[in-house]
Parts: sequence; structure tokens; C-alpha cells
Amino acid sequence: MHRSIATVCLSGSLEDKLYACADAGFDGVEIFEPDLVVNDRSPEEIRALADRLGLSLDLYQPFRDFEGVTPDLLEENLRRARERFTTMRRLGIGTVLVCSNVGTATVGSDQVAAEQLRRLGDLAASFGIRVAYEALAWGRYVDDYRRSWRIAQLADHEAVGVCLDSFHILSRGHDPAGIEDIPGEKILFVQLADAPDLSMDVLSWSRHHRLFPGEGVWDLGRFVTHLVRAGYTGPLSLEVFNDVFRQTDTVRTAEHALRSLVWLEDRAARLLADDGGAAAHGGAADGGGRASLHRIADVDVPSGYDYVEIKAEDTSGVEVLLDQLGLTFRGQHRTKPVRLWSSGDARIVLNEQHARDLDPHLAGIGFGVADASVAGDRARALAVRAAPRRTQDGEQDLAGFVAPSGLEVFLNDRRDRTQDGEEPAWATEFDRGRTGGAGEITGIDHVNVSHGWDAHDEAVLFYTSVLGLEKPTATEAAGPQGLVRSQVMRTPSGAVRLSLNVAPVGVSHPEHIALACTDVVAVARRARERGLRPVPVPDNYYDDLRARFGLDEATLTLLREHQLMFDRSATGEFWHFYTPRVGRVCFEVVQRVGGYDVYAGDNTPVLLAAQDRLDRGTR
Amino acid sequence: MHRSIATVCLSGSLEDKLYACADAGFDGVEIFEPDLVVNDRSPEEIRALADRLGLSLDLYQPFRDFEGVTPDLLEENLRRARERFTTMRRLGIGTVLVCSNVGTATVGSDQVAAEQLRRLGDLAASFGIRVAYEALAWGRYVDDYRRSWRIAQLADHEAVGVCLDSFHILSRGHDPAGIEDIPGEKILFVQLADAPDLSMDVLSWSRHHRLFPGEGVWDLGRFVTHLVRAGYTGPLSLEVFNDVFRQTDTVRTAEHALRSLVWLEDRAARLLADDGGAAAHGGAADGGGRASLHRIADVDVPSGYDYVEIKAEDTSGVEVLLDQLGLTFRGQHRTKPVRLWSSGDARIVLNEQHARDLDPHLAGIGFGVADASVAGDRARALAVRAAPRRTQDGEQDLAGFVAPSGLEVFLNDRRDRTQDGEEPAWATEFDRGRTGGAGEITGIDHVNVSHGWDAHDEAVLFYTSVLGLEKPTATEAAGPQGLVRSQVMRTPSGAVRLSLNVAPVGVSHPEHIALACTDVVAVARRARERGLRPVPVPDNYYDDLRARFGLDEATLTLLREHQLMFDRSATGEFWHFYTPRVGRVCFEVVQRVGGYDVYAGDNTPVLLAAQDRLDRGTR
Repeated sequence: MHRSIATVCLSGSLEDKLYACADAGFDGVEIFEPDLVVNDRSPEEIRALADRLGLSLDLYQPFRDFEGVTPDLLEENLRRARERFTTMRRLGIGTVLVCSNVGTATVGSDQVAAEQLRRLGDLAASFGIRVAYEALAWGRYVDDYRRSWRIAQLADHEAVGVCLDSFHILSRGHDPAGIEDIPGEKILFVQLADAPDLSMDVLSWSRHHRLFPGEGVWDLGRFVTHLVRAGYTGPLSLEVFNDVFRQTDTVRTAEHALRSLVWLEDRAARLLADDGGAAAHGGAADGGGRASLHRIADVDVPSGYDYVEIKAEDTSGVEVLLDQLGLTFRGQHRTKPVRLWSSGDARIVLNEQHARDLDPHLAGIGFGVADASVAGDRARALAVRAAPRRTQDGEQDLAGFVAPSGLEVFLNDRRDRTQDGEEPAWATEFDRGRTGGAGEITGIDHVNVSHGWDAHDEAVLFYTSVLGLEKPTATEAAGPQGLVRSQVMRTPSGAVRLSLNVAPVGVSHPEHIALACTDVVAVARRARERGLRPVPVPDNYYDDLRARFGLDEATLTLLREHQLMFDRSATGEFWHFYTPRVGRVCFEVVQRVGGYDVYAGDNTPVLLAAQDRLDRGTR
Repeated sequence: MHRSIATVCLSGSLEDKLYACADAGFDGVEIFEPDLVVNDRSPEEIRALADRLGLSLDLYQPFRDFEGVTPDLLEENLRRARERFTTMRRLGIGTVLVCSNVGTATVGSDQVAAEQLRRLGDLAASFGIRVAYEALAWGRYVDDYRRSWRIAQLADHEAVGVCLDSFHILSRGHDPAGIEDIPGEKILFVQLADAPDLSMDVLSWSRHHRLFPGEGVWDLGRFVTHLVRAGYTGPLSLEVFNDVFRQTDTVRTAEHALRSLVWLEDRAARLLADDGGAAAHGGAADGGGRASLHRIADVDVPSGYDYVEIKAEDTSGVEVLLDQLGLTFRGQHRTKPVRLWSSGDARIVLNEQHARDLDPHLAGIGFGVADASVAGDRARALAVRAAPRRTQDGEQDLAGFVAPSGLEVFLNDRRDRTQDGEEPAWATEFDRGRTGGAGEITGIDHVNVSHGWDAHDEAVLFYTSVLGLEKPTATEAAGPQGLVRSQVMRTPSGAVRLSLNVAPVGVSHPEHIALACTDVVAVARRARERGLRPVPVPDNYYDDLRARFGLDEATLTLLREHQLMFDRSATGEFWHFYTPRVGRVCFEVVQRVGGYDVYAGDNTPVLLAAQDRLDRGTR
């Protein structure tokens, strides 16, 4: 379908926005009136620029407070409309968004609203313009798309139809299936936004907290299927008012926005196919005059972690920790200053290439997928930027991509690995190491990624759309420098778990790699014998455990002796400890007992406070 | 009254918080349990530190999910309580906060809750502890303070009373006057928080958006009068969960918090006096066994601006602008590199003292007050830091204070100025200038102050408590780099108006001084003759004015010729233009016509976009 976006979604000047939308691959834009008003280019210049960039100008919006008014106000509103239509003619825009009246409506009659919209339709038609009437969720009388459609039917004018906005429909909990009762040709425009599950007044929710499709809680794929069944073939346009996106880089946000539309079309196409509809493949329209939905390569949900990469000018401090934790040095890469450590299925790659002046930090994650070429095709279709990786003859070619935080994500083929525990082919590129004795550490339990407040929603969409991760829970933990927000992302099986963390502004939050093990006490004991001092846990914490869980003294003594933290859920227990940081990275060693399947969120403040004491050198 | 604060209000470690609270002048603190759990000092050490600092430990909180449960759960809850009471004894804390059950209550009977609280009271009494039972706004069965009091009455136990929290009472819209029906000795603790007028779920509102008294929308002074009438004499304690305060400097936030309590006590004392009660003065308790409320010097609401000060290493660029706008150079200060320009009541002080490497920026505002010594006493009582000002013999001694953004605020006596338009005495310290011809510019209309997101609430409280400004409206304007939030502060008469602006993170937002005039067209014409190029206004803006207001072509031509902006309200019109920035400062020239008494908020995005074009050198 035709991919469009409202200019209000992006930061910058109107020209910045047009360039970014064209570069990202949008087909058209909605002109948000205030973006034009503050701009010093004439409407003719804007139109010419859009023409040169190959962008259609799909909609002019918003025109407010028109219908349901007294006769004298109607004349004033028609005068206003004439002025706007004149501007639209200069821009060459053929559709205007008319929102249901919020401020000046005094007549609640559908008949009156319809008559007034018919007057507007006459005026619009004389300019070659169509009126897309939209029910705002907070309209004075009209706040339901079914009522706006009823009024549009009553208006019975060739130039009058409706605009449907997923936010205004889904925020009110209205069933979008009713869209199928509207003839497609009377749906003149469609605006899409997702949203988080917030309980606040709908106006604030709408103006500040909308999200791109795939980032919130609504099933917009299903929403689009109703549009297709209604016979709608016009633009799918993003209208996302979001305080963060308004101030992030224009180009980056435009790419992010387009990715959400590509993902959404694919998802809707799959739902239609599942429903038995003939969904289009590869961009071709199906036979029944339906909209063509572009479908991309299947999602290939990772079956596990292949490796985690830490990069620094000097990674030897990390090697000390890995040795203390019982991992084995497996060798140096044949052609690069890159070293591999492992234990069981936990592989840590230490990269000193092109790392001058860099402190140890999380630089990449390799995921095992069933078919790397399909997974790579999907990532490319979602316009994810490729991460360069030099290979030489005889080395495995891995498909790498850059995640929003700058983290490099590699999708590595597991087709050739038939047995559990078999190592990936690329591991043979490392030599002069020791044979991997599998110790207590068996794999990577989860990885804790940290990024700025402005990259969070983009990161959620990346892992959702590219890797098919789910986003079950968002939490927050209080640290000495403020609240840290976390979004857990995971595969349905739990084989891959990521925690996406947003630190308070101006505070760097550590990344960590959590290693799964079968006996955390044994790992902790050996690590201390080898000189590790784990992150110290206060005695007050153990008193708290006693109060919360009624642990016996023997258990508390064991926990305290090894500076372990503890949690219990209805289904099991969680035992874990943390190493101090080297650079920005630390390790956590975790043991899940029974069916414990979450994270020890209540322990995070203990970690944050302890790290703060270590950073400040206070005891 | 005894001034206390919950440790959760502040950032940092528990020790950081104790030091900051003591330094700020608090009498005691509430220990927020998680602050203890993450801390590596023993309870005995915390108690000893608090003793040394002269802080009482007034409350241990929170103990959750106790009452209204099944018998077996009750036993487990009593076990938990015993553990916490043991910790409290080590801390030497005599009161525990028990919140109404949210998670595990299954019995809605007041009788059962009371019996269970009586059991808890017995246990607590054996530790010498009192139980302060609080109705959370989102309690499962108990969410109203009148019900928690009824249950406490039924419990009928010496060690059981209630805790009252203004948030839980006022957020639900419950009438606080009912507090007076509770015997003061059964109110075991009081927690105070203000809040902004947000429409969101009460839990999120409570956990993230509370404010210190005086910063939100509630009349907490009135709230305190009910407590006094009930005979409550215990601590007034701040419990403010706020994401911003959690990450701002601990010391600064503690001072800010104490200021809110000082202001609140004074306000409550005045309300009691107005009500005919015998409010205490100067900290003495009144005769009736009532709590003593400390009253401070009267607020002296400024009658106008004395001057605005711009500081820089080189202020000559500002002088060019002032000359273009028709202000007169009035002279150089006799002893300092400071120059005065004026027109009518608009006085701009240009300060080059100790300004090496500084770009022009807003450094100070002088306000005219009726009695500077009273106004200064009030500021000092509110623990505002003094701004140093060197004076020599024969120069006026001005009382200066530092506002949260670093701006210096001077309170200048107007007692000696009997006539309107008479100049302040300090103006005579400037010589070798020209005589002030009063041009079209008559005074300072408003000043636009900019500060970081973390200083905003503190700034609101400063201007409210020290100067008695009101905070009528908060707005936001979209700029190319994000939303700019503004809070207008003003005196009732409008003689002093300030706009407090918060720019998007990482973006510097200009400060500006708005000069009032009687003929903006004349000012603009002369300024252009003298070489000023005002901030350019797009033609699209004038098209928008035509559409919105139906302005005639002659008016539009006049506006466009002088690059003026325009607004119209129900009561009048607003004509204005902006100069380009010099350093961080620009000037606005405004003419208010008729009863126009607001700001042209819709024009701010036009200014922001134009300044962005000037900054980037794009046309």
C-alpha cells in the first residue's frame, strides 16, 4: 500500500522532514498545518520540493471545529475553509482532514452536522478537494467512528467521506471490525498509531504518548485487515504524536517509522492469509480489487545465543573475570585480534580490533537462527542497516545488522548444527586455545542492554520486527541516581532474553551478561578462590530476605557467605550474584531453580546501590 | 512543628540523604525501607549517624498487605511484622506505617481488619512501637481515611492509630475537613505531598508525579489547619515520589523540600489567624495545646520590575539592539563596569564585571517591593541563598538572592518612590550618560527565563513562596527540536510576569526580555531605520492569520512590512516582534491593545522555527 506519514511525527523543519521521509522510503506525507505556518518556504516551493523528492502530499490537516454549529458560525467556518483550501490548492493537496468539533459545537444533531458537511463538500469540490471527516476520541458530540460514518452517509456528498485513525478508535475500546461495513471508497484516509497501555486522559495520551505500530499494545495488523476487507486502497499513514520522536534525529526517526509500516503490512498480510484471504505476496494486488499488502521474509525466531561480544582496546580485565567464573580460553582468531572464551553454550568474544581508547563495552550479540539467509532478508526488508564484517577465505560469512543502540546483531545459521551443544562453525576460526571443559556455566541466561531514553521505542520495534521477540513486561528500579526503566524482550521459549534498560538522563547504566549455571554456589566459591570479590551485598538485604521469605538461618548463611542474592516466585527460585564492572560491563551468574521464569527485579536496587558505592569508593 | 521528610524523596545513598536533610534544617526523617535494604551500614550505624546529625528517625515505612486476610496469612504477616519490628528496634524507630492492604486482602469486613490490627498492636506494643494505619488511595477495601479511622477506632488499641497522607486523601477528592473529627493523639503521623492536576491512574500519579507543597494544585495550607484543629502535634513530613527529584542533587533537593515546609507552615498559620484562631507567631505554641506553626515575614508582592540585568564579557552587541529599539544610554556605574539603559520604566543593566568568556545572558532581575527589609527577611526565612553584591559608601544596599536557575533576584525598596515613573535610588549611581527620553517603550512587559527540566518545580516554588507570584497557566509549544514547556508566573495585577521555560533535553532555549510599548509599529519602523533586522516571519504565517482572524489586507500588509506577529483574544489584541539573539538573549517588543492579558502562545512555534533557521544559517 501507499506508505505515508504525518510531518508532525518528526523533528526539524518541514524541509528536513521531507528529505528524511523520501530517504527512508515513504511514498507520501500528510502536511501538518503548523509545520507549514512556521516555515518560510511558499506552498509552491514545498510542493516542488516534494515533487523532486518523489513524495506525494496526501493530506492537509487538521481543520478543526467545523460542524454542529450555529448558522452564523457556519458562515465564518466556511470562510476559514476557503482560505485553507486556497493554501491546499497551492500545495496541490486533494484531501483535507476535518476533525469532529471539540470547541464550538452546540448542536448535537447528526442531520445538522451532515447538512453542514454537505455545504463544506460543495466548497471543497469547487477546489477539487475531498473532505475526510474524522471522529476525535474527545469530540464534543462525535467521538465514535461509527457516528462519523453515519454523518458522512447522511451528508451524501461525493466529496465527503471519513478518515479513520486507529488511536481514536482503539483508545476508546471501539471494535474496529465495524470498519468492514464502510465502503472502501468512502474511507478517504487512514492514520495509524499504536500506544502504550496508559490510564490517563485520552487527550494527553494522544498528544504525547502515541507510538509507531508494533511498539504499543494494540493489534494494528488486525486493524489493517478490516481496512483491506472494506476495500480501502488508499494510503496507510502514520500519525504519531510523541514527545520523544519530536526531538530525536529526523532521519533516524523516519527510518524507524518506515520500519513500523513495513512490519505492519507484513503482519496484516499474514493475518489475512491465516484467515483464508488471498493475501498479496511481493507487492502484487490480489484478484478481488483488494489493496496489495507487501509481505516480507518470515521471521526466524532465534533458538539461542551464539555469542556475546565485548569490545575494548584492552580486554584483559574481562579475561580475568571469565577465568574466575570458570570459562575457558578457547583461542585467538586466526586473522583478527579477537579471542574466544566459553563454557557450555556460553561463548564470549573479546574484540580488540579498531578499539583504540574504548573501554570494555557490549558491542555485539550473535543469535542462532534456523536459516540465516531468510533472517537476513527480513532484516534488510525492514531497512535495518548492515554491520560490516571483514571475512577472509574460509571464514564464515555472518549477516550483521546495527540495532538502535549501536549494538551489532548477527544472525548465524544453525542449520548445520544438528546436535544440542554443538558449536557454531565460526568457532573453528579460533585456535591456540584450550579445549572447552564445560563447567557449571551452561549458557547465556540473558543480556542486559542499556541505551538512551531516545532510543527505547526504536529498540523495542527492532527486536520485535526483526527477531520476533515478545515484550512481556516493563518494570522500573530505583537507583541512587534515579529510576531505571527496563523492558524485557524474549522469545516464547525463553531461549533468548534481553533486558532493554533506560538509565536516568546523564547517568550511564551498566550493561551486563547473565551466565546460566547449574550450581551458583560452586561457581561463586571457585571464583572467590581465584580472587573475585563479587559486588558486595549489605547485611540489611539478608534481613530483608528473612522477613520476606522466612528463609532459615542455614540458607541465609550460605547466601551471605557467597554474597548471593535470592528471589522466589510461585514456581521456583532464583539465585544469583554479580561481578564488579570492567569498563561498562559486568557479569551476573544465575541459577534458576524449578520453574522460575522471570527476573529478580526487587534485587536490582541492591545492585545499583552497591555499584554506586564501588564507583564512589565509599564503603 | 517537627519537620520531617521521607528518604524516598531524595537521590543518593541513605547517608547522603541524612547529611542533606540535616544540613537543610529538617528535624527528622522517615526511613523508607528499600533505602535501608540496599545500604551496607547496619541499623545501629544509621541510628548513630542520625543521632550525631541531630535527626530523629520518625517513621519506618511501608509495611504492606497486612489486614483483611485469612487466618493462616495473618500468622505469616505477624511473622513478617516481628522481623520488621526487630529492625525498627535496632534503628530506634517508634512508629511504623501500615498501608491498607492492596494485594492479599480477601475479607472486606472492618471488624476483621480491626481485630487483625489489634493483634498487630499487641505485637508492636511489645516492641514499644505504634502502628500508624493509612488508607492508600488504591487499597483493596480501605481507600478512604475515614474508613481507616473507623477501623482504628474498632481496633481500640493504645498502639494503633492512623497515618494521614494528603495525597491519598486529596487525590480521591475526599474532604479533608473530616480530619477534625479524629482526636489528635490518634493521628500518629502525617505525610504531605502536593500534586499537579493530572488525569491518570492514581497509582502512577502517586508514584511518579507528586510535588512538594506549593508546587501543585492542592491547598495544603488548609489541609494543615484541619490537623491543627484536630489537636495533632506530631511531625509534618514530606513524602514525595517524583522521578525528577529522585535524580537531582541531594543537597539541593533537601533545601528545596524544607523551603516547601517552611512556606506551608506559614501559610497554614495565616489561614488559622484569618479564621480567627490564635495562630502561633515566631514558633511559640498557642494557649490551647495546639501545635505551634512557625510564621515568617509577610510576603511582599513586587509592584513591578526595577531592572533586568544582562551579563557578558562584552555587552556591546546588546547595546546596539537597545539603541535600535529606542532605549537611552543612561550612564556607566561609578565604580563597576556596569552600564544602564532605559526607556520609561524599562531599565536594562549591562554587567561586564567578572564576566570573562561569558556570552550575553540573563543574569539578574530586580523587583520593586514595598519594604525590602521585610521581603528579605522572608527570603532568608525560606532559606534562599544570598547573592553577594559589593557596595561602596553612598551606594544603595540591595538584598539579593539566588533563584534555582542561578538567576540573581534583587528585592529593591520602593518606599522612597512616591510618584509613578520615579526612578529607583540606585539609578543615581550611574553617570556620564544621556538624559532618559521616554520613547514608545514604557516598561518591561515580561521576562522569559529558561532552565533545565530538573529545576522547574523548584523554580515554581521559589517564585510562589518568596515573591508571592501566582501560577495561572502551563503551556507547551512545538519547536523544531521538541516541545518547550512554559509556566507563566505573575502577580495578581500583572505588573510582574515571568515565563519559566523548560527546553527539550540537550537543547538550549533562548531567554528573552519583552519590552512594553505604546506603538509597536513606530518602534519597529525606527529600529529598522537604525539597522535592525527583526526575526523573520514567514508569509505562511500571515496567510494563517488571514484564515484564523479574517484580518483585512491593509492590516496584513502592515504586519508583514514590519515582520510583526499578532494575536487576538476575547478582550483585546497583541502585536509584537522579536530581535535576533545576542548570546542567549533576545528582546521582544510588545503592544497590548484593549484588555489582552495573556501571551501569544500560538506564535511561539513561529519564533522557535525562525530562530532555528537563523542558528543554522538556512533561509
